[in-house]
This record gives sequence, structure tokens and C-alpha cells, in this order.
Amino acid sequence: MPSQASPVPPPVFAATVSPVAVPRGDLTAQRSTRRVTLFPKYGACCEVDVRYLWCGAPDAPTIIVQGGISADRDAVTFGEQAAGWWQSFIGEGSTIDLDRFRVLSIDWLTPRDLGSAQAVSSEDQADALAALVEALGIDRVHAFVGYSYGGMTGLAFAARHPYALDRLVLLGSAHRPHPLATAQRSVQRSIVRLGLESGQPEQALALARQLAMTTYRGSEEFVRRFATAPEYRDGRFHFPVEDYLEQAGRRFVARFDIERYLALSESIDLHDVCPEQIPTATTLIGTPSDRLVPLADLCELQRRLQGSATLEVIDSPYGHDAFLKESERLAPLLRDALA
Amino acid sequence: MPSQASPVPPPVFAATVSPVAVPRGDLTAQRSTRRVTLFPKYGACCEVDVRYLWCGAPDAPTIIVQGGISADRDAVTFGEQAAGWWQSFIGEGSTIDLDRFRVLSIDWLTPRDLGSAQAVSSEDQADALAALVEALGIDRVHAFVGYSYGGMTGLAFAARHPYALDRLVLLGSAHRPHPLATAQRSVQRSIVRLGLESGQPEQALALARQLAMTTYRGSEEFVRRFATAPEYRDGRFHFPVEDYLEQAGRRFVARFDIERYLALSESIDLHDVCPEQIPTATTLIGTPSDRLVPLADLCELQRRLQGSATLEVIDSPYGHDAFLKESERLAPLLRDALA
Repeated sequence: MPSQASPVPPPVFAATVSPVAVPRGDLTAQRSTRRVTLFPKYGACCEVDVRYLWCGAPDAPTIIVQGGISADRDAVTFGEQAAGWWQSFIGEGSTIDLDRFRVLSIDWLTPRDLGSAQAVSSEDQADALAALVEALGIDRVHAFVGYSYGGMTGLAFAARHPYALDRLVLLGSAHRPHPLATAQRSVQRSIVRLGLESGQPEQALALARQLAMTTYRGSEEFVRRFATAPEYRDGRFHFPVEDYLEQAGRRFVARFDIERYLALSESIDLHDVCPEQIPTATTLIGTPSDRLVPLADLCELQRRLQGSATLEVIDSPYGHDAFLKESERLAPLLRDALA
Repeated sequence: MPSQASPVPPPVFAATVSPVAVPRGDLTAQRSTRRVTLFPKYGACCEVDVRYLWCGAPDAPTIIVQGGISADRDAVTFGEQAAGWWQSFIGEGSTIDLDRFRVLSIDWLTPRDLGSAQAVSSEDQADALAALVEALGIDRVHAFVGYSYGGMTGLAFAARHPYALDRLVLLGSAHRPHPLATAQRSVQRSIVRLGLESGQPEQALALARQLAMTTYRGSEEFVRRFATAPEYRDGRFHFPVEDYLEQAGRRFVARFDIERYLALSESIDLHDVCPEQIPTATTLIGTPSDRLVPLADLCELQRRLQGSATLEVIDSPYGHDAFLKESERLAPLLRDALA
């Protein structure tokens, strides 16, 4: 990426637009890249390649869908590909109905994409999405549906580009990170930095992911699954929950980059949006078992938003992961919010 | 420590009994060591030196006081010494009144003390205390007051030596660890093991302690103290909570041994006592902000105990640390329980 500050250049269109496999002939899908100009919060003006997926009924209203820091643009996939990270929520006839809407998602930017930036902010991600929306010729976005860091980015989008957005739907996202969650992520990043220093980066990334896994699910879910006796092997006791954590750590290392992890984890903790600046109609969805984003923070956000705001609470044992797993409970709430 | 299995030897009395500084002439204090015979749960019969503090009014009833895994026998100290870990609860005229009681505490045993044992159990600690009680000529213990791992040991004591104990007082302790807390401690131990492998054991122990610190205090306490903006220095953003965690990590490394930490942390997770086997009258004290030992587990324990059991709930923002800090709120409950 060029990092020099430059006058705002005309949009440069990517050379290739690769259509992805689509199940029915009347849906469109673009999996492509656009170059846009950004003014990063912690860096100088630069051009950035934004990788996106845009799919659904031709000319239908567009819904932006963004997930957590480990999600990518493939919220939904078609044909033979591995399932997208929100596959059970998006599709023809599904909760986000591709016969009625188009879905737009991007790969998260990192400081590497932003040239010499010190860090990447949720505002940068929002600005990249807004520039992409303009470049794609989308007049107004029907809705921004954001889960976790995606919802933080949605709040930043609504605060900075309210004219471009009709409604905001937040799942397990608030205007600021909870300081306890920041503490937990801070330790995760310190583990990774220690691993980088001591030449064991992959083991350290796996451990950081293990720690993250202890924060995602509800407390009762751990009791239901792991309240059994430990086993003595390889010179020490192994507790049932350890096998689960170790497997999750290994899987994460296989698919995630260390610098990316450090930067996006930090970006969550840098997130800070003033709710009073957001006029967009907003639906907040939370669950009491979410220990990363407590309901109290969603209540505060609802109270402080400038526009109309509805708080919906679902009962789920899955904690912060509820918004990936509870497709049936969430479907009526999402349909209402998108109507 | 000898590790050979041997016939039960006669108690060997330690050579030195060092009286500690005592504020008034009519109190006694022994800070000493006794050798006792143990049959460890995960090892062979061995002789063990038990380091203890026994202090208070001469011939008064004895109360055993045991704290968390980082506590030692110095629950209370006298004269010029640094304050004991439960100093604000114990003393002349204090909640545990040394004019009316004697307090007995030991340093936790580790597998190293137990010869070739694979691990140390809360039952081993309880058996060591029971053997010490007998060696000191104490007929019956008036009460076992245990906080955290100390309460786990109290439960093991009551299950295995009910004839020797009149009442049990548990602060933030249950019959088994919560699987989520086990997950958090498991990651802590993995961090330390990774540090040992990669030649950075002290940095790793500090990080493990940082992670532990995220589990001790209530969630709201983090908001109250750390909801302020980060600072950019030394090439990255530092969040206010990080400075708190890093200081706690450094302090811990200066006073704690790695092998000891690994063994006692594991011992918490190995703890598993059947409440139905405990006939002792028990007072359980908990707080809703304790995320390591949820109230639901104390409710289950109260329901399942064979003897009479009272559950007291205090309101505190300090989470699992409430039982170190809330001396005023706890005083009337402790006085009632010990009456």
C-alpha cells in the first residue's frame, strides 16, 4: 500500500471482478476489490484496497453485514465452498433474504493496509465501507447489521455517514469496550508479544485464542459441557475444558495471522463512539449470558442514542457467540428490524 | 522430603519453636514446624514438615484460618512485621478476637513437600492440618474459616475429620471449581509452561498473574477504575487497565515461586468434595460479584451439605477479593458464625 499523503485520487477500479458460484440464475454476486482513499484516524491519507463480497437480487436494497474480528467478507458462500461465517442467517428465503436484499461485506483492514498507520480504528473500517458504498453506486444503505466488532464499525458508520444509512442493527456491540474485556484482550495481546519475543509465536497465538474462548460462551455452557473429571496423561492432569481450548487454539493458528490479530484486537479496545452523535434508527440485541458486552452497556447505549433505539434481549446460553448460533431466536428480531 | 513409603512413624518435633513478636504479654504465638505423616492422594506415604503459626490467648479454643493459594501461614502478624494477609480480620478485640481464640494457619504444601507425588490435593492439605492439630494437642477445632482454596481445604477437612471440627465457615469456596474458572486457570498454567519452555518463565508468570487479576474483581469495579482513554507510548497504545495488570504481575513474580504456582493452581482444579459426606454445621458466605465462585454453586453446596448450612450473601463490588477487603461487612457474619 502506498503510504504517502496525496490529494484525493479518483477511484481506481480493480482489474478483476470474480463472480462467485451462485445457486440460482437470478442472483448476482461480486467478490472483488476496490481502491478507495482513506484518512485513517492514526495515520496519513492513503489509498486502500477494500476486498468485498456483494451478493443478492439485482438492484435490491443493500444490507451491510460485518462480524467479529475473525470474520471475513464471506458472510455467505454459494455452491461447493465452505460455509460463510453467517451462512445460517443469509440466503434465498432466509432471515436476510437474498431474493429481497443484497448483502455487502468487507475483509477488515489492518494497519498494514493503511500504510504507516499506528493502528486501525473502527472509524477507518466505517470510512472504507462508506467509500466502497459510494464507489459501487449505492445511494443509501438499507441497513448495517453488525456483530461484535462489526457492530462497533456500524456505530462509527452511523456517526460519520448518517446520510448514507437507513437503519442500524447491533448484535453484542456497544459504543465502547468494557474495561474488563479490554483487560482480557490486553493479556491476550501480551501473550502473543511474549511469544514473538521468545520465538514461539504460534504457540502464543494459540494460547491467546484459548483465553479468548473463555470469554465467548456463557458460564453455564461451561458447566453443561465440562463438569467431568480430569485425566492423568503425559505427566500431568488434563481437564476436559483444556482439550476444547487446545483444539480451538490450534484451529485458529491455522487460519489467522498474528499481526492481523494484534491489530484488530487492539482496534476493538480503541473503539469509542459518542452515541449522542448517532441519529440513525437502531435496534440493539443482547443476551444476559454475554460476558464480553454486558446488557448494562447496551442499556446505556440505548439511553444515549440520538435516534430511536430499541433494545431486544434474547435468552441464550451461548454468551457472545449467541449471535453466531441462535439463528432461530434471532430471525424474527432481525426481520422486524430490517422491515 | 523423604518419598519412600514407610510405616507410620512417631511424630518428630521440629527443633526450633520461634516465638514471634506479640503486642501484649498475655497472648502466645508459635511460628514453627512440625513433621507429620501423610498419605497423599496422588503419591505414597511420606513425612512432611508443616510450617504453621498458632497464636492467641493461652488455652483458648483454636480457629483454623486458611486463605487462597497465594496466602501463607502469616494470616496475622505482630509488632514491626509486614501485615498478615487477613490482618484486618484477626487481632485483640477484632472480628476473630485473639483474646478469646487462638488462630492456627499453615503454609500450603506442594508436591515437592510430598516426595514423589504427582500433585497435591485439598485433601492432603486437610490431612496435614488434622495431623498438626493432633500433634499440638488440640482436642477439637472450634472452627475452620477458609477463603477460596482455604475453604476447599476446610470442606476436605470436614469430610475426612468431622470428629475434630465444630463448625465450618466458607468464604468464596465451593465443593468443586467452576469449569469456566478451571478454563481460566488452565490457560494461566499453559502460559507459565510456555514461558518455561521458551526461557521466559518470569515474564510468563507475570502474565499468568495478570490473567488471574482479570478474574478476581467484580466487573463494575473495572468500569469504575479503568474507563478512561489509552495513551500512546513506546510504540503502541497502553490502556489504563494494563498498567494495573502489569504492576500486579511484577509484584507477584517478586514473591512467588513458579513450581508452587503451577501446583497450587492445579490443586484448586483437582478439588472435588462430596457435600453429602459433611455433617459439620456450615456457614457459606458469597457475593454476586464473585465471578470465580458463582452464587449458584454456593446454593448447590448449601442444598447438598449433610449438616445444617446457612448461606449469607454480601453486596460488594470486589468480587472474589471481597473476602480480603470487606472486613466491616463480614465482621457481624463471622462473629455470628463463630459464636
